[in-house]
Amino acid sequence: MPHALILSRHAQEYASLIATANLPDLQVLATSSTTTAIEQGRDCAIVFGEPNLIRLVLSRLPALRWVQATWAGVEPLLDPNLRRDYVLTNARSVFGAPMAEYVFGYLLAYERRLLQRYTAQQFGRWDPTPPGTIRGKRLGLLGVGSIGAELARTAKHFGLHVKGYTHSSEDCSSVDVYYHGADLQAFVTDLDYLVSALPNTPHTRHLVNAGVLSALRAKAIFINVGRGSAVDEVALAKALNTGRLAGAVLDVFQEEPLPPTHPFWETPNLLITSHTAAITIPSEMTRVFVENYQHFIRGEALQYRVDFERGY
Amino acid sequence: MPHALILSRHAQEYASLIATANLPDLQVLATSSTTTAIEQGRDCAIVFGEPNLIRLVLSRLPALRWVQATWAGVEPLLDPNLRRDYVLTNARSVFGAPMAEYVFGYLLAYERRLLQRYTAQQFGRWDPTPPGTIRGKRLGLLGVGSIGAELARTAKHFGLHVKGYTHSSEDCSSVDVYYHGADLQAFVTDLDYLVSALPNTPHTRHLVNAGVLSALRAKAIFINVGRGSAVDEVALAKALNTGRLAGAVLDVFQEEPLPPTHPFWETPNLLITSHTAAITIPSEMTRVFVENYQHFIRGEALQYRVDFERGY
Repeated sequence: MPHALILSRHAQEYASLIATANLPDLQVLATSSTTTAIEQGRDCAIVFGEPNLIRLVLSRLPALRWVQATWAGVEPLLDPNLRRDYVLTNARSVFGAPMAEYVFGYLLAYERRLLQRYTAQQFGRWDPTPPGTIRGKRLGLLGVGSIGAELARTAKHFGLHVKGYTHSSEDCSSVDVYYHGADLQAFVTDLDYLVSALPNTPHTRHLVNAGVLSALRAKAIFINVGRGSAVDEVALAKALNTGRLAGAVLDVFQEEPLPPTHPFWETPNLLITSHTAAITIPSEMTRVFVENYQHFIRGEALQYRVDFERGY
Repeated sequence: MPHALILSRHAQEYASLIATANLPDLQVLATSSTTTAIEQGRDCAIVFGEPNLIRLVLSRLPALRWVQATWAGVEPLLDPNLRRDYVLTNARSVFGAPMAEYVFGYLLAYERRLLQRYTAQQFGRWDPTPPGTIRGKRLGLLGVGSIGAELARTAKHFGLHVKGYTHSSEDCSSVDVYYHGADLQAFVTDLDYLVSALPNTPHTRHLVNAGVLSALRAKAIFINVGRGSAVDEVALAKALNTGRLAGAVLDVFQEEPLPPTHPFWETPNLLITSHTAAITIPSEMTRVFVENYQHFIRGEALQYRVDFERGY
């Protein structure tokens, strides 16, 4: 009988949801305590939960064969000093829809001048300034995995032109044109919106640097829903402070929570959303776990397997 | 040779756009002056422009056969005291896309807590409050013409359930369930979002009244992109002031610009957008005119004909 450790701040909620799935022969230990996990988890072949907690118990689980992370980014488990003798799967199909709501909510708010109209209203001012439109605009996606694909699909719904920048994949039909490797400048040069959904890997570090920012049109908007490490934050603050870039919406940062002294708090035309773009919804995350569990007990390949070397 | 009068604040822009279409045999008089229109327009069989201006010259155009309005709502031309011996067509295919950008921009901003996060940022506060989502919510459309159909289509893209309330039509496949006539209370009772795209007609006046507002769930949001006449503004202000309704976004009002003394300026949880939800884009409006002109010279039925009695 497989033993599973649920190690999560929401362990009891996940345990209840998994119980309703009536998985055959599964025995569950649900806890938010790493101490409990270490003391009682030595028979667990399966771990389901948050990568930052799992990292703390990883070396103390002798029976471990599979970890299902509840996050898309699994950096805490990618440290080369940690064991890699298990299958790591991440949360890959659940964040596309909320990310699309976030990105298009902010793009539309920008074009519709939502904040400016709100300010006018506070002063009792009728503000007939015409809005902009996202239709017909050029969106560039840095990274086209499951999140980028959903962003592309929503972009096509609204009539945008979609450019994708990836390592090598070209498998999303909603992307109009792909760029790779050294084509980064050509990729960004005519964009209205640049959106990063890049994971944190050695290859993505500071990909959005001063050179990329200066290749963007001055009226472009940058949105980051991936990881803060992909952005040179000093260069971005400078681009916004000098008006070189029209605006940015950042959900992720090199250090989170963003430190009180960070220059971004004083940077103009920057919206900060405190890593809330796509929160994990336990019922959907449980669906991912349950599906993968059924593959696991049948000895089949698991979905959303992370390549430790590649980092995603 | 047909003579056309372009009577519009943007007469010269429309004249340039129409010139590029190389319409056969069309002679154009383009002006924003009603005096010029009356003095020089007596041979014009065709009028293209803004209903409020056209109303002022309507009785002085002896050759008139067709009016193409640049607005969706053509109330200025529906006064029973005005002539109706011509074909009136309105702007019907051009506002769906911008209206969808507006409605979903505001729904997403509401669910993502955009204004609250913006306020937190002004105080340097990291705000990890989880967002809501539009996915899975219930949207009710009051009026499902070309605008409502585009709203429904976008709602389905984002995974909403769509209810439609119409006089009798049921021809939009993106609406999950239709309601008519006396079913208004049943239509609104379980909605998360109520959106009115209703025209100004005797039948729609104050359709959104105290009874409808009290049948809505307390956490519902009301958006009006149709005409202000469809709403009992006193009842709406009361519902918002008492917390009976979570929020409203209003683009249209019984009197526009909204008078400085109107209670809406002081009403909580109300966003005012100054009749900017869908502005007329001259190039798209010209496309509508050109297509209809080609029908006109061939003696074919025109698109988007307004029924004077029905009012849309």
